[in-house]
Amino acid sequence: MGKGKVCLAYSGGLDTSCILKYLLEEGYEVIAFMADVGQEEDFEAAKDKALKIGATKCYIEDLRREFIEELCYPAIACNAIYENVYLLGTSLARPVIARAQVAVAQKEGCFAVSHGCTGKGNDQVRFELAFYALQPSIKVIAPWRDPVFYNKFKGRQDLLDYASAKGIPVTSTKSKPWSMDENLAHCSYEAGILEDPNITPPEDMWKLTTDPTKAPDTPEDFTVSFEKGLPVKLEYEGGKKTATDSVDLFLTANAIARKHGVGRIDIVENRFIGLKSRGCYETPGFTMLRAAHVDLEGLVMDREVRALRDQFLTFNYAKLLYNGLYFSPEREFLEESITASQKKVNGSVRCRAFKGMFTVVGRWSDTEKLYDASESSMDEIGDFEPSDTTGFISVNAIRLKKYGKAKEEAGESLVTKH
Amino acid sequence: MGKGKVCLAYSGGLDTSCILKYLLEEGYEVIAFMADVGQEEDFEAAKDKALKIGATKCYIEDLRREFIEELCYPAIACNAIYENVYLLGTSLARPVIARAQVAVAQKEGCFAVSHGCTGKGNDQVRFELAFYALQPSIKVIAPWRDPVFYNKFKGRQDLLDYASAKGIPVTSTKSKPWSMDENLAHCSYEAGILEDPNITPPEDMWKLTTDPTKAPDTPEDFTVSFEKGLPVKLEYEGGKKTATDSVDLFLTANAIARKHGVGRIDIVENRFIGLKSRGCYETPGFTMLRAAHVDLEGLVMDREVRALRDQFLTFNYAKLLYNGLYFSPEREFLEESITASQKKVNGSVRCRAFKGMFTVVGRWSDTEKLYDASESSMDEIGDFEPSDTTGFISVNAIRLKKYGKAKEEAGESLVTKH
Amino acid sequence: MGKGKVCLAYSGGLDTSCILKYLLEEGYEVIAFMADVGQEEDFEAAKDKALKIGATKCYIEDLRREFIEELCYPAIACNAIYENVYLLGTSLARPVIARAQVAVAQKEGCFAVSHGCTGKGNDQVRFELAFYALQPSIKVIAPWRDPVFYNKFKGRQDLLDYASAKGIPVTSTKSKPWSMDENLAHCSYEAGILEDPNITPPEDMWKLTTDPTKAPDTPEDFTVSFEKGLPVKLEYEGGKKTATDSVDLFLTANAIARKHGVGRIDIVENRFIGLKSRGCYETPGFTMLRAAHVDLEGLVMDREVRALRDQFLTFNYAKLLYNGLYFSPEREFLEESITASQKKVNGSVRCRAFKGMFTVVGRWSDTEKLYDASESSMDEIGDFEPSDTTGFISVNAIRLKKYGKAKEEAGESLVTKH
Amino acid sequence: MGKGKVCLAYSGGLDTSCILKYLLEEGYEVIAFMADVGQEEDFEAAKDKALKIGATKCYIEDLRREFIEELCYPAIACNAIYENVYLLGTSLARPVIARAQVAVAQKEGCFAVSHGCTGKGNDQVRFELAFYALQPSIKVIAPWRDPVFYNKFKGRQDLLDYASAKGIPVTSTKSKPWSMDENLAHCSYEAGILEDPNITPPEDMWKLTTDPTKAPDTPEDFTVSFEKGLPVKLEYEGGKKTATDSVDLFLTANAIARKHGVGRIDIVENRFIGLKSRGCYETPGFTMLRAAHVDLEGLVMDREVRALRDQFLTFNYAKLLYNGLYFSPEREFLEESITASQKKVNGSVRCRAFKGMFTVVGRWSDTEKLYDASESSMDEIGDFEPSDTTGFISVNAIRLKKYGKAKEEAGESLVTKH
Repeated sequence: MGKGKVCLAYSGGLDTSCILKYLLEEGYEVIAFMADVGQEEDFEAAKDKALKIGATKCYIEDLRREFIEELCYPAIACNAIYENVYLLGTSLARPVIARAQVAVAQKEGCFAVSHGCTGKGNDQVRFELAFYALQPSIKVIAPWRDPVFYNKFKGRQDLLDYASAKGIPVTSTKSKPWSMDENLAHCSYEAGILEDPNITPPEDMWKLTTDPTKAPDTPEDFTVSFEKGLPVKLEYEGGKKTATDSVDLFLTANAIARKHGVGRIDIVENRFIGLKSRGCYETPGFTMLRAAHVDLEGLVMDREVRALRDQFLTFNYAKLLYNGLYFSPEREFLEESITASQKKVNGSVRCRAFKGMFTVVGRWSDTEKLYDASESSMDEIGDFEPSDTTGFISVNAIRLKKYGKAKEEAGESLVTKH
Repeated sequence: MGKGKVCLAYSGGLDTSCILKYLLEEGYEVIAFMADVGQEEDFEAAKDKALKIGATKCYIEDLRREFIEELCYPAIACNAIYENVYLLGTSLARPVIARAQVAVAQKEGCFAVSHGCTGKGNDQVRFELAFYALQPSIKVIAPWRDPVFYNKFKGRQDLLDYASAKGIPVTSTKSKPWSMDENLAHCSYEAGILEDPNITPPEDMWKLTTDPTKAPDTPEDFTVSFEKGLPVKLEYEGGKKTATDSVDLFLTANAIARKHGVGRIDIVENRFIGLKSRGCYETPGFTMLRAAHVDLEGLVMDREVRALRDQFLTFNYAKLLYNGLYFSPEREFLEESITASQKKVNGSVRCRAFKGMFTVVGRWSDTEKLYDASESSMDEIGDFEPSDTTGFISVNAIRLKKYGKAKEEAGESLVTKH
Repeated sequence: MGKGKVCLAYSGGLDTSCILKYLLEEGYEVIAFMADVGQEEDFEAAKDKALKIGATKCYIEDLRREFIEELCYPAIACNAIYENVYLLGTSLARPVIARAQVAVAQKEGCFAVSHGCTGKGNDQVRFELAFYALQPSIKVIAPWRDPVFYNKFKGRQDLLDYASAKGIPVTSTKSKPWSMDENLAHCSYEAGILEDPNITPPEDMWKLTTDPTKAPDTPEDFTVSFEKGLPVKLEYEGGKKTATDSVDLFLTANAIARKHGVGRIDIVENRFIGLKSRGCYETPGFTMLRAAHVDLEGLVMDREVRALRDQFLTFNYAKLLYNGLYFSPEREFLEESITASQKKVNGSVRCRAFKGMFTVVGRWSDTEKLYDASESSMDEIGDFEPSDTTGFISVNAIRLKKYGKAKEEAGESLVTKH
Repeated sequence: MGKGKVCLAYSGGLDTSCILKYLLEEGYEVIAFMADVGQEEDFEAAKDKALKIGATKCYIEDLRREFIEELCYPAIACNAIYENVYLLGTSLARPVIARAQVAVAQKEGCFAVSHGCTGKGNDQVRFELAFYALQPSIKVIAPWRDPVFYNKFKGRQDLLDYASAKGIPVTSTKSKPWSMDENLAHCSYEAGILEDPNITPPEDMWKLTTDPTKAPDTPEDFTVSFEKGLPVKLEYEGGKKTATDSVDLFLTANAIARKHGVGRIDIVENRFIGLKSRGCYETPGFTMLRAAHVDLEGLVMDREVRALRDQFLTFNYAKLLYNGLYFSPEREFLEESITASQKKVNGSVRCRAFKGMFTVVGRWSDTEKLYDASESSMDEIGDFEPSDTTGFISVNAIRLKKYGKAKEEAGESLVTKH
């Protein structure tokens, strides 16, 4: 143990099992760390395996609540979306995992943390930027970026051979032809056969959601309520059941969405390091909660606050999450701005899930009254003086008339088609 | 005819028929103008009616091609969307209608144009701002903002009584409990029973799309190809059929989407004049073409060009379309920027429609090679030096380490949960 | 007094004196209201005049502290500037004046407020939007937009004749060939001879600042300290004198700037109503405090927080102030974001004023340590590994190499000059 | 010459002379390259020195015209400024230098380029990102990031010793206590004694501009004319002299500004790599040309085009220049947008320089007529209906009244001071 203690993010899989053994052989003492962010996994079996390989200890940390409350909910509150499509499911889990891993490392007196991320992906960046912000003095051991390691293990077979030689039990000798990352918010699929962006993902790849063509023939309705932009209640089964606890609410949304096949996407995205990458994602409950939130904002949010938030917070908050900059001054700044934008986002949205599709079928707010049916009505004059609009139009036209006159004088009539 | 000639935007319906008669009674000579932007309508019957009421002439202008090519296609090219949801179907038609109406007015020597828009909506603003830019000297007669007119016609019954008294034929004495606006891109529904935002629209309201629950049980695949961000080819029925002409392509996309129930939305939006309004829209083909375009950009567009376009052009172009500022210096400016952003958006997207849902199932480009499967591959090192990422992360961490250190010194550990 | 009580913003000048009389003649009871926002004025003489003309009461409200603390200081904190040049001195005073006027109106039971703003300017908009937000039910009487009034008073001579006929004392029969607006932050000059944007303002126009060519030949140094982005201390006369009270600090900055001729600008700007307008402004102390604030941010503010603030808050906060949207949901939202951005803006800036020019000659912070001379030093390696930069550059170059390759393949070498 | 040919950016100074020798000793053949971007330098002496040390050839390329026309003028056209203060003088020169160096490398068959930039600065990033875009296959030799090199040369004395040992002539054994970078647009000063941000730069540091306190007591007037946002004419000496050629115009602006001490700044800025750095810059003519351009835009540019440009192009174009991303897809995109924004920026600005201060004293345009004195005039009604503004205000107030009502209902009166 001459080289000191390292806290390794351990999954129980082939890669991190080999890394664990490798670190031990290199002379490190290893504390294994597993984060429960809602993925389907036999944590106890993995823990046994880690200890059997030689880890001094193995921590299993349940991070589901903080993942939902600190990451997923603010993301919903600002409608975070990356490159118009991706809901950031993987990115959202990284900050809570990194934080818990550093906390374990500090508790155990580890001088370094280690992970099994590859050298071309986003996750290495996300984890390490978080590590360095969380504890600037920390050391990071990234075997897949270490030539000694990656030249030794050039393919899956090298890992299998090593595992066999070192007595590391291997659950399955056959891996799926893609890699996955799962948590409470989503499951991602990338690499392998998916690297050809024109290959349609096989139907058996999708794990979290029912194939929409096999989903129930009857739509399912439910109602989500928000306070200050955060989900606080989900009523379902005709109002007979209600979920209010954040984890319970999120799991309920997931269950509905999964049953009806909601939340699958398939995109080519731009990684932080500048490569393009094809990813398939299923984000069941989150997709619906976010869409319901967007809808409610239409009813209760001031137009200009929304426009400023749309131009500023949504894009930038999504970008920083994607790039792994959660623990940063700009995230603190943006998060306070998000909170400021959501004061009035109080109300309920009636929702429907059906064969892959999410729709809103109604919404109301008991407290926010920006929408006023009679005032908006085309059939009533109300407090509103129609002739005021004449003045509104005239003043807005001042600038446009000058534009039109300049065109006329230049002989470039706007009236003629291009 | 003492007061001169007016060009009236005429629909054949009750409102504009009464306005036509009213204008004649007020002493104007009236040239009726009808725009064919793809709405389902008996134009010839309407023309006969206009002439019968007393219009000097009635123009019917086919604006479908310019509507698609000059408005819908640039909107697709910049992924235009208003308040995250609305695809601007009504807004997109207004500029071509206003332009053709002013052209008719000029040809006929009309001193004024007139329309039947209500006094609280967006359309009056959109039409009139366009009129004033197109011909700064033009006069606008907006009866629904004229107290003499709107005090005379306080409800539908007053219009029916007037029509009856003046011998204006009325097709149906019963109007739908909402108002509609239809064109090739979409159909909108608002007002009436829809003014309660918590009322689910009745199933028989939707006109352009099949009820998703009644749509075919088998998904339908097709492929859309783009050049410089504009749709240029749609292949369908297993590649046996191909549409390349812009109008034909658009109509084909509509037919597929309608059959599969794609493109319905239901929102509360913010009007230009500051009121909130509930609108239901179905935008069949346009929804799919836009989504396919978004997808292709992932494959072929540079990350930073896309990010700048997303932050800047999409929001602002949508906002100006919504607010009726198409004929403006800023639209010229933005449109040149859109064109500049789309040079590399060349390629094809394989698409699927099924029970209300649109999905992408693959994409490729024969000319743009920003995506390189082997380079992105987690399994190959290629030209890429994994250790470079260590330097990339370290340099990005410089700023974050300072942030972390300042937190440590302030005793506000980032490692502790909130 | 049959028509009820009106609270009139009164200046003591010819226009509002005639308006006061006119309102009385129209049957209103008038409460005169004067706001002291630091302009040079004989308030008591004006009050006597108002009462003599027939006002029931005349309020003089000292708003200088709230003007500085609630408006000027937040504007400094976000570096507010309109169209790259204008520091918004007039706009900043409007909200406190409108608020105090409505408070007087409410106290006195007035059903309406009135003002003497012209019908083409920004101030009518700023005042009235503030009035309507402050008290949505309030009525506004704007004589210069009332055809009865403005047709009666077509020029200055009409006002003089009316004053003479009604026994209203007129201080000077000759007005300056421009109009002015003065407060603690600035003095504006517009209209009259300044309407030709190519006329250089006459030297005797400028009121608040010394002609730079006649300013002292010796520069004057002083130091401004900020806490959370707000000025908290101004040390001058070689550190012998110190101002810490907000009003005192602001007046001191003004005194230094005035003596050295700092803060004059001359621009053509775009009014909210769409007209262009030429304005000359002198903004002595404010110009220097803002510039010192900008400088300090370089030392203590995180790069990304600053970049986001620069892109978002500065432009939008300035725009809303200019357009009179201070009392609005978006101002609340933006102001909370500004506060969030300024947490670390703590430190001091050493400044110099000389013949119209403001310069920074040094800065430091005792608490914020983002800047680290040894770390930035080109002469020391320190904690920094130069080879990391190689990786940083390589990863940033991934995207650019693809761009270069595509250019090469397209035969459009970047190496050849355009 | 076993290792192949390298093209070295050579300055004639101590660092690059030692690097040249070192590369030769390492077995490379070296082609020296000098860029003339207007810096004061004895190019022929430097060339002799390079050849004497052992360079195979030494190229001196005059890049002044392309530097001004391709870089400085577009920067003026979009008012480029970094972090509110810095005019990017160094950044602007890098792209033309890198391009010419790669051209020489290609002509000479060099496999690599080399430079003497330090490992913590921006310039290494700017040069290398440009190199990689210009020729993706190129190799870069950066000695100051090579441990072998920087461990050998730990300080200036090591370089002096090496030079002495190798017979490299050293002009001066004493270096200035700061480093400089000069070109036609500016001169920068950083490092050394300037690393303490509270040290006022010594008066003898500034090289390009007269000390403002010693500048002429008489202001100097001149007129700059622009076409499509680019300077095309500078009239001076009372209109007796005129410069129209781009280089001549720029040099004339420099001469005037230098004489009057215009263009000095002193800031702490954020480098691309995340460190803060103190820099002093003098940017004489460029400062004035940019300020004149800003002024003209007030007169001739549409408000909304300007607002969009200000929010979008200025910040982002400056950021990419600063970060060395000139040869990039986003620069192409932004540059086309800049061009689109400048179509109407045609006119002339009358300017004044005096003791460090630049002021505008008038402006006009013969072709653009957005400004209309009589229309803006407060004294004339003209085409404008003042009552229209009532409607404009009323419609804008709709949203604000709702805000005010909600506040009233919540018992949070806006009328009460905070």
